[in-house]
Amino acid sequence: MDKIVNVLADRYASAPMKEIWSPEGRIVMEREFWIAVMKAQRKLGIDIPAEAIEAYERVKDKVDLDSINSRERITRHDVKARIEEFCDLAGFEHIHKGMTSRDLTENVEQVQIYRSLLLIRGKAVAALKRMADKADRYKSLVMTARTHNVAAQPTTLGKRIAMFGEDLAAALNQLNSLIDHFAVRGVKGAVGTCLDLLTLFDGDTAKIEQFEKEIAEYLGIPHTLNAVGQVYPRSFDYAAVSALVTLASSLSSFAKTLRLMAGNETASEGFAKGQVGSSAMPHKMNSRSCERMNGFKVILCGYAEMLAALDGDQWNEGDVSCSVVRRVALPDAFFAADGMFETFLNVLDRMEVFTAVIERENRYYFPFLATTTILMEAVKHGAGRETAHEAIKEHAVAVVRDLRNGIITRNDLVQRLAADSRIGLTEEQLQAIVDRASDLTGMAIRQTEEFIRQTGETVKRFPKEAAYNPGDIL
Amino acid sequence: MDKIVNVLADRYASAPMKEIWSPEGRIVMEREFWIAVMKAQRKLGIDIPAEAIEAYERVKDKVDLDSINSRERITRHDVKARIEEFCDLAGFEHIHKGMTSRDLTENVEQVQIYRSLLLIRGKAVAALKRMADKADRYKSLVMTARTHNVAAQPTTLGKRIAMFGEDLAAALNQLNSLIDHFAVRGVKGAVGTCLDLLTLFDGDTAKIEQFEKEIAEYLGIPHTLNAVGQVYPRSFDYAAVSALVTLASSLSSFAKTLRLMAGNETASEGFAKGQVGSSAMPHKMNSRSCERMNGFKVILCGYAEMLAALDGDQWNEGDVSCSVVRRVALPDAFFAADGMFETFLNVLDRMEVFTAVIERENRYYFPFLATTTILMEAVKHGAGRETAHEAIKEHAVAVVRDLRNGIITRNDLVQRLAADSRIGLTEEQLQAIVDRASDLTGMAIRQTEEFIRQTGETVKRFPKEAAYNPGDIL
Amino acid sequence: MDKIVNVLADRYASAPMKEIWSPEGRIVMEREFWIAVMKAQRKLGIDIPAEAIEAYERVKDKVDLDSINSRERITRHDVKARIEEFCDLAGFEHIHKGMTSRDLTENVEQVQIYRSLLLIRGKAVAALKRMADKADRYKSLVMTARTHNVAAQPTTLGKRIAMFGEDLAAALNQLNSLIDHFAVRGVKGAVGTCLDLLTLFDGDTAKIEQFEKEIAEYLGIPHTLNAVGQVYPRSFDYAAVSALVTLASSLSSFAKTLRLMAGNETASEGFAKGQVGSSAMPHKMNSRSCERMNGFKVILCGYAEMLAALDGDQWNEGDVSCSVVRRVALPDAFFAADGMFETFLNVLDRMEVFTAVIERENRYYFPFLATTTILMEAVKHGAGRETAHEAIKEHAVAVVRDLRNGIITRNDLVQRLAADSRIGLTEEQLQAIVDRASDLTGMAIRQTEEFIRQTGETVKRFPKEAAYNPGDIL
Amino acid sequence: MDKIVNVLADRYASAPMKEIWSPEGRIVMEREFWIAVMKAQRKLGIDIPAEAIEAYERVKDKVDLDSINSRERITRHDVKARIEEFCDLAGFEHIHKGMTSRDLTENVEQVQIYRSLLLIRGKAVAALKRMADKADRYKSLVMTARTHNVAAQPTTLGKRIAMFGEDLAAALNQLNSLIDHFAVRGVKGAVGTCLDLLTLFDGDTAKIEQFEKEIAEYLGIPHTLNAVGQVYPRSFDYAAVSALVTLASSLSSFAKTLRLMAGNETASEGFAKGQVGSSAMPHKMNSRSCERMNGFKVILCGYAEMLAALDGDQWNEGDVSCSVVRRVALPDAFFAADGMFETFLNVLDRMEVFTAVIERENRYYFPFLATTTILMEAVKHGAGRETAHEAIKEHAVAVVRDLRNGIITRNDLVQRLAADSRIGLTEEQLQAIVDRASDLTGMAIRQTEEFIRQTGETVKRFPKEAAYNPGDIL
Repeated sequence: MDKIVNVLADRYASAPMKEIWSPEGRIVMEREFWIAVMKAQRKLGIDIPAEAIEAYERVKDKVDLDSINSRERITRHDVKARIEEFCDLAGFEHIHKGMTSRDLTENVEQVQIYRSLLLIRGKAVAALKRMADKADRYKSLVMTARTHNVAAQPTTLGKRIAMFGEDLAAALNQLNSLIDHFAVRGVKGAVGTCLDLLTLFDGDTAKIEQFEKEIAEYLGIPHTLNAVGQVYPRSFDYAAVSALVTLASSLSSFAKTLRLMAGNETASEGFAKGQVGSSAMPHKMNSRSCERMNGFKVILCGYAEMLAALDGDQWNEGDVSCSVVRRVALPDAFFAADGMFETFLNVLDRMEVFTAVIERENRYYFPFLATTTILMEAVKHGAGRETAHEAIKEHAVAVVRDLRNGIITRNDLVQRLAADSRIGLTEEQLQAIVDRASDLTGMAIRQTEEFIRQTGETVKRFPKEAAYNPGDIL
Repeated sequence: MDKIVNVLADRYASAPMKEIWSPEGRIVMEREFWIAVMKAQRKLGIDIPAEAIEAYERVKDKVDLDSINSRERITRHDVKARIEEFCDLAGFEHIHKGMTSRDLTENVEQVQIYRSLLLIRGKAVAALKRMADKADRYKSLVMTARTHNVAAQPTTLGKRIAMFGEDLAAALNQLNSLIDHFAVRGVKGAVGTCLDLLTLFDGDTAKIEQFEKEIAEYLGIPHTLNAVGQVYPRSFDYAAVSALVTLASSLSSFAKTLRLMAGNETASEGFAKGQVGSSAMPHKMNSRSCERMNGFKVILCGYAEMLAALDGDQWNEGDVSCSVVRRVALPDAFFAADGMFETFLNVLDRMEVFTAVIERENRYYFPFLATTTILMEAVKHGAGRETAHEAIKEHAVAVVRDLRNGIITRNDLVQRLAADSRIGLTEEQLQAIVDRASDLTGMAIRQTEEFIRQTGETVKRFPKEAAYNPGDIL
Repeated sequence: MDKIVNVLADRYASAPMKEIWSPEGRIVMEREFWIAVMKAQRKLGIDIPAEAIEAYERVKDKVDLDSINSRERITRHDVKARIEEFCDLAGFEHIHKGMTSRDLTENVEQVQIYRSLLLIRGKAVAALKRMADKADRYKSLVMTARTHNVAAQPTTLGKRIAMFGEDLAAALNQLNSLIDHFAVRGVKGAVGTCLDLLTLFDGDTAKIEQFEKEIAEYLGIPHTLNAVGQVYPRSFDYAAVSALVTLASSLSSFAKTLRLMAGNETASEGFAKGQVGSSAMPHKMNSRSCERMNGFKVILCGYAEMLAALDGDQWNEGDVSCSVVRRVALPDAFFAADGMFETFLNVLDRMEVFTAVIERENRYYFPFLATTTILMEAVKHGAGRETAHEAIKEHAVAVVRDLRNGIITRNDLVQRLAADSRIGLTEEQLQAIVDRASDLTGMAIRQTEEFIRQTGETVKRFPKEAAYNPGDIL
Repeated sequence: MDKIVNVLADRYASAPMKEIWSPEGRIVMEREFWIAVMKAQRKLGIDIPAEAIEAYERVKDKVDLDSINSRERITRHDVKARIEEFCDLAGFEHIHKGMTSRDLTENVEQVQIYRSLLLIRGKAVAALKRMADKADRYKSLVMTARTHNVAAQPTTLGKRIAMFGEDLAAALNQLNSLIDHFAVRGVKGAVGTCLDLLTLFDGDTAKIEQFEKEIAEYLGIPHTLNAVGQVYPRSFDYAAVSALVTLASSLSSFAKTLRLMAGNETASEGFAKGQVGSSAMPHKMNSRSCERMNGFKVILCGYAEMLAALDGDQWNEGDVSCSVVRRVALPDAFFAADGMFETFLNVLDRMEVFTAVIERENRYYFPFLATTTILMEAVKHGAGRETAHEAIKEHAVAVVRDLRNGIITRNDLVQRLAADSRIGLTEEQLQAIVDRASDLTGMAIRQTEEFIRQTGETVKRFPKEAAYNPGDIL
């Protein structure tokens, strides 16, 4: 039987994300870390021959997972298996001095997380850029905004897109903070006291400090933890993945709303080349990608929950009850987030807006959309707010019912309101308000422009990321 | 880059579970299902040549995932890709008549779930059998039971094992009910009305009923849904995986308790051959497998949550927003549950009990373990319950404090209580109670025997499953 | 400051559910339990004066929560505070003999859960009854079924209701199994060995067995656990609340679908008397109750997760790390489930169906709804399935696009298909299919009738529950 | 029947947190908000008489929840009920002009959240302060660090406390970022376009901007959202509560570790005055408060999950499917977090450390604790790392087994290692290492001091918060 592949990696994640989390890539990262440690140790006086380091460097890319796995089946210890493999390949026994397994794995895993966060940030910026572009394109396209899924007031499609964009921008703030405060565990030994390193360095604490600095520099992460135990706090993992959940909010709400719009035929996510709809009903243009985005959101929440259960469950200086969970939840959460952004970028590129249908919907809801303005005008003309509200409500509800039950065939709300003295407005005044309904988008256009301006700032900060183009998706 | 493998399948799941969920295995299951459909349709008069069916049968095991994936990259439709592949291989176009994608996938996935549940049930029975054996072996080994993680009263190790066993037995009841009520969707068309099949059969509803019966028989699942839409209710997936969470409870509590016992050196999960402890501290016998079991429990909860989020989110007759989630959560939940049971069975086989340490602990807690009996005796001799309780508490707390602070070096609780008139018992009476403390296991042995008897009933019902031996674990 | 009330109880739960979980009601249940224990003990020879029991009985309904709370603030032990209060009220010290706190609390809480499950089952039956009635009323009302939220094939509204009803019926099966297997912990002492009772009964195990039987009978729960420790397995709590989640699936999907239908104005949840819509847009009939039902579902999942985290976290014979969680999650989950059913029953009673709008929608989608039938007919007339599928898809997609972009104003799909030789059907044949589209509901009506029949069986089993009428809701 | 109280508020939360979330407090906050709106509107030219504002101000503290609830039972609209009540009390109809319900509720709820976050931050600082004090006190107390719950290497108790403190400090960073970026929705109307306000201000956008500024100032939150719809993004709620989960990590790990230490009698959480242990076993000093802290963590995760399910589920411009969930999850999450910190502060104040037991444990593990140092020394003296590791492991495992099985009664590891040529160290050299084992705390003391120094910076930033003293707890 062939190995079962990781579905999220195989179907949805991009190549750079897969590189970070592939077993082969990880083995190489570990080996490079060991080499960096040896170099720093040698520099600080530990007796490690230069030729040994060279030997390790020569073989570092020779990754034979089957061989490592066979070793692990004997030792029941994954790091031990990888030490043996690397040493046998190089013909030396100089790696891992003064280190315990976690000195290797914690740091390498934090690098994986850190790089993944950078990658996701890039795609969030690219998504914001596209949302600003779309918002710009549709900033004046008047449409019927909905609350409780029913027609409420006019807005513009651009403003609707900006609304979801602002959610993403806020999430990006949190992600930036996370990246800026990211702290790596460092090489600290079995219980975090650096005991074995200190022995190696004959009790010279200055050398420990120098060594820590070299390693931090190598890893490229600005902060290093100080009083950590065997493991870095698992709250870090939770914080990272819950940041992904927060980022996913905007995408998921956008996708749900596009699915709703597809149901009314005001928009669709579009078809990619060659795409087939439902095999039984070929005319259907299903929101498969948006549905998938909503699925990714669910997946992210599940992984966040797994990591939340690890967070706060450290016994003493640590153990590996978290190990199997992190092997699953960390890569898979990043694959899902990555796939979600790739999908979103594709949807933004190919989504379609059906202006004709939007206008048809606007006409249908026209008189109702104007009721809040009618209320405001009535109040300005002297009606009590609650009284006028009651009157408008009565007539509006009656018109809706009569239309739904086929009693009337055209909307006569204006006439009914004009005849009601509680309102205090003439038919002409009322009709004028209704005729202006498509102007009733309030600050929508200005807000959209402000969103575009704010996004411009972000794009200026991350120009390369903003220019990213997604790969094809399934 | 090589494909990234599924960690749960690759490292922890057994071969039979992987067979159920492997992509290749699934393709074959789908093709066999199509063939079963063609046979039933041909029998009911649909014009499908016997040679076409034979052609399909000849090629059904030729699974080329890469070819199918290339097709999907063009069509953006996974089932369509698999239809094309199978038809091209066979040289005919006769499969999938009167069917929509979900007629294929829903049924095949339900078979995967059903078979997985049977597999897990077998392992639960095997675990119960081993727990009963262990409980029998240690039914009279007196030990210090703990509540709030501190010494409470005597029990026996057999009773402790039976306690966790009873949790598993209760979960098994729920699983049996789930299996007994399992209902498959059947072939019902795009919105569940059987419209296309009915067209195919020229409106002959009797043929539909006959066809449904043939398919249900082929699938081997006793019940078929009636009024289902495009998809079977996703509450079924949640119910299946939440049953796994319930089953995992016993295993997880057992594992946590064994980790605690390892901390006191009263027991250990044992070492497998060749196993290496912490590379830095070679004497350590770490509870790696038990820690992993606790990790599997966390994973199961995460997948249950993903499926809970799908449950109750059906829009109209259904969509695929659940698709990506189910691709991940269903197989991975079963891999995790399978790996958890495999680990548990291994732990049960190799765990070690350190009788000498258990006895040392008993001696240490002896006088305290007797206090509830002292209280009962005092009450029987006329003391008020609350008054005596207060007196015993005072002295017990004082002795504990004096011992912990080095003020006394031996436990003089008996003497202190004898001197207190609120108790009303002589030093001789008190000492006699303390000396009998190891008899103070109450009904523990009888309860253990009753658990063994009950488990015997289960073993009798599933003898083959009870005899299962796990594979090696990492 | 006044006490902050429990929102779920105060706003949504019914009186009977609140009675089960109110602090006062619980105190009384505990006292009745103590009295039952005393009676059983006295019968078995323990020296408890009849007048003491009478004294306790006289004061059992005098519940002064403030007094109990003051005691707890001193003792830091809730059960101890309640023992003192009850004894002071009665003027005796005879309760709680041979018992530990958990002997009281575990059993009382299980009774609360058991009774709550019975209450919820009753409402599930009442909901099924109403769904069957609605399904019957609308069994022939043809409507446009949707998958991916877009028009797919015809169905009937009755069938759609039956579809969600079948989900509920399946969940009810699981609930029945849970109720049938429910097992109470019993009075077993601090670590489950019955040590203190055995001391009380001078080591007479037959008396223990007799005592357990009396208590079980008093509690009204058929099964009693055997080898349990200090606490009953927390998997029981999880199983109960995950059964609520499973039940909620049907309700939640129904509510989402009704919200979608409200968006298209094909149905609404209706207004209760005096209800006000959005204060700013009075004509709106918002799906507030359905939205709330979806909220309850989310709440239930959250409580299920809390309980899942307790499940499998038993250290040794048990502790109270679960206590604060269960104080919150158990009552609140039942309040939420209860409120959800109350809301659902109200919605079922007042929902409105807008036949005129449904018919307008049908007409709009008519030609597209017929495409799968056209495909079947084309295949029967000799076209290859994949070829015909491709042709229909081309034309259908083109018509949709032309309509959406205003290029055509009427649907000419029939004409386009007639002109395409790949289909092999004449315009007359095609038009005839389209004209019959409203007959294309397949087995929908028969399936609906079968659902009604099955529900009838359930109603026969629980006639009183089926007749339940909900209270008013907010 | 009395109302059922909110358990989390009633038993665990502090008065200031309850004030923020009490229904009465909220009504007053809403009324103050309406008054602020009226003042700003009047200032900008809207015709609102000064005497009306005064009338509202006079009655703003007259909160009659029963009256409001009766109104809601009629209107089925909570805000409408509160408008009517306030207007009837004041005798005017001037509030809520140009506003929709959400203009009121969103802003008030965000203020509740913001103030709650500030309150929790204060307690986190107070906890850090206490942890630094404890770390200082025990910085040199050598103890046996554990990994996998078994003895690993020496550390100091101060370092262990610092380790958990560093987790909290990192979480505080995230919380600070959240507070710094907090953005309020503002008064934006039904779909976020400010349409009704703009009508009210006769289309004068400058007045809108001025009005927004006044309101933001009044609320005391620095940022205001721009393109928001009816509701602020629910990702904000999730971000707030997931920050609580992250904060809870440190507390929960600390509590679990203290429960483990209590099991070994090296420490206890202490008793509050008058506290009663298990009623059946009065000598027991149970870790009730720590267990409760772990329970709070579980509760927080459950509420985070509820809010995660809302996040990303916005349909169009918004609806109230989130309403019931937020009514429960937001206050209750803050009550739980507040109760958790109150409990933690109490535990930090009264925890006990049993030095005598810690030393006894150290002596027991002495020779094993030295093995990694022995390995380092052996390597420095020329042994191959893997070879020496193997030798030490062999002997260490043998000694452990012989001790556990009663074959030897004293630890002779030094003698066995001296006799093994693979090590290359004499008995004298080995014994010297073992004798120095209590010096083998590596950088522990320095790391502790660094933690104390860093905490000092935080205390300097928040001096008032650092000085907070918790209330009594149950």
